Amino acid sequence: MSGRLIGVGTGPGDPGLLTVKAVRALGDADVVAWFAKAGRRGNARATVEGLFRADAVELPLPYPVTTEIPVADPRYGAAITGFFVEAAAAVEAHLAEGRTVAVLSEGDPLFYGSYMHLHVRLAPRYPAEVIPGITAMSGCWSQAGLPLVQGDDVLSVLPGTLPEAELTRRLIDSPASVIMKVGRNLATIRRALAGAGKLGRAVYVERGTMEQSQMTPLAAKPDDVAPYFSLVLVPGWEDRP
Amino acid sequence: MSGRLIGVGTGPGDPGLLTVKAVRALGDADVVAWFAKAGRRGNARATVEGLFRADAVELPLPYPVTTEIPVADPRYGAAITGFFVEAAAAVEAHLAEGRTVAVLSEGDPLFYGSYMHLHVRLAPRYPAEVIPGITAMSGCWSQAGLPLVQGDDVLSVLPGTLPEAELTRRLIDSPASVIMKVGRNLATIRRALAGAGKLGRAVYVERGTMEQSQMTPLAAKPDDVAPYFSLVLVPGWEDRP
Repeated sequence: MSGRLIGVGTGPGDPGLLTVKAVRALGDADVVAWFAKAGRRGNARATVEGLFRADAVELPLPYPVTTEIPVADPRYGAAITGFFVEAAAAVEAHLAEGRTVAVLSEGDPLFYGSYMHLHVRLAPRYPAEVIPGITAMSGCWSQAGLPLVQGDDVLSVLPGTLPEAELTRRLIDSPASVIMKVGRNLATIRRALAGAGKLGRAVYVERGTMEQSQMTPLAAKPDDVAPYFSLVLVPGWEDRP
Repeated sequence: MSGRLIGVGTGPGDPGLLTVKAVRALGDADVVAWFAKAGRRGNARATVEGLFRADAVELPLPYPVTTEIPVADPRYGAAITGFFVEAAAAVEAHLAEGRTVAVLSEGDPLFYGSYMHLHVRLAPRYPAEVIPGITAMSGCWSQAGLPLVQGDDVLSVLPGTLPEAELTRRLIDSPASVIMKVGRNLATIRRALAGAGKLGRAVYVERGTMEQSQMTPLAAKPDDVAPYFSLVLVPGWEDRP
């Protein structure tokens, strides 16, 4: 008897934004696995508090501490790959015993989620299902009440880690954009938006749908301090209601 | 006493992909409004069957029949705008009576959804809330088990209605893409993907998460017939697990 792998999207942070299917899968799971920084429980785990069985096994998958290795260094990639190989082995140990393993994933599992690294390794050999989740960007524009795209608009999802010139070019080339991974890059993002002539329409959202959420026109934000859970939305259609 | 406007994302079609918050809002609503083609109930309404009160008022908002007017004709835009003005007035009549109106929206309300046209007209004057939904694209890549983007990847959401040359250019410029509005444009989309050297990695998904869903590598699909509810996914990272 083979176990089952389920990637469960936990959405942007508000437990009410879990899907009905996700709640059901959590209640059925023998094992609940979750990625998080070492020593933390992380956002996905916090979102599902109280939603799984008391006798379910919790399987934390703590990211390796890689801050001493530069991202461009090949040893960084090797450390991350090694970590996903080990995490897949830890999950597989339960699957091989016939258990159902729910792997939590903030937002949507296959949209920039760590779960995908387990899926590609395990789905070829075990029954696997992915339950989509509300993405952080969707949570943010909903909370802001900010229509992003309509009709035949193009939308670009851009990481704030892009070099300024490339970010500027892509902002110019796209009627609407979402900038992810704002964190330490807000000063660069601000310059790129100004260069693209779009700073005036950019909206900054911090911790969207969570407690202590904040949003403000980016031009009105007095500093460039931003937590990891922040986004910049650049809507494309305010002239066409 | 003022009514409340709630935009409810109903997700891609599987009722299990409604959020907990959406189910709650539907159960509380005095009025359930939904856009659909004239004479049809549409996908959003079908998804929420049995989830609202028996005494709730149903308010269908049938799209005008505009097939006889070319999209580029100014009369087309005028007809659509007139329709949204009338739809907002029909919803407002209930809000003014103090009722809570849930407006159904396939996928996510502010992501290419008709709800946004009501939101911009009514949210300035009535309490309004948007409950995000699982997008069709997220439902499709989850069902396909196809990781779309990771790390610092750029994702482009492209309407299949773009001219072939522009579609080709954008496909080349983006590591990962989702092509929406496939419908009658599949032959053009196929040529654009071939021109961008990406036909081999494109996946066609029809009616994702619904009954009778199908998916296939686009290169293996023998015809260019596609229903409205179909998407093409172009993942960006298969070389980097």
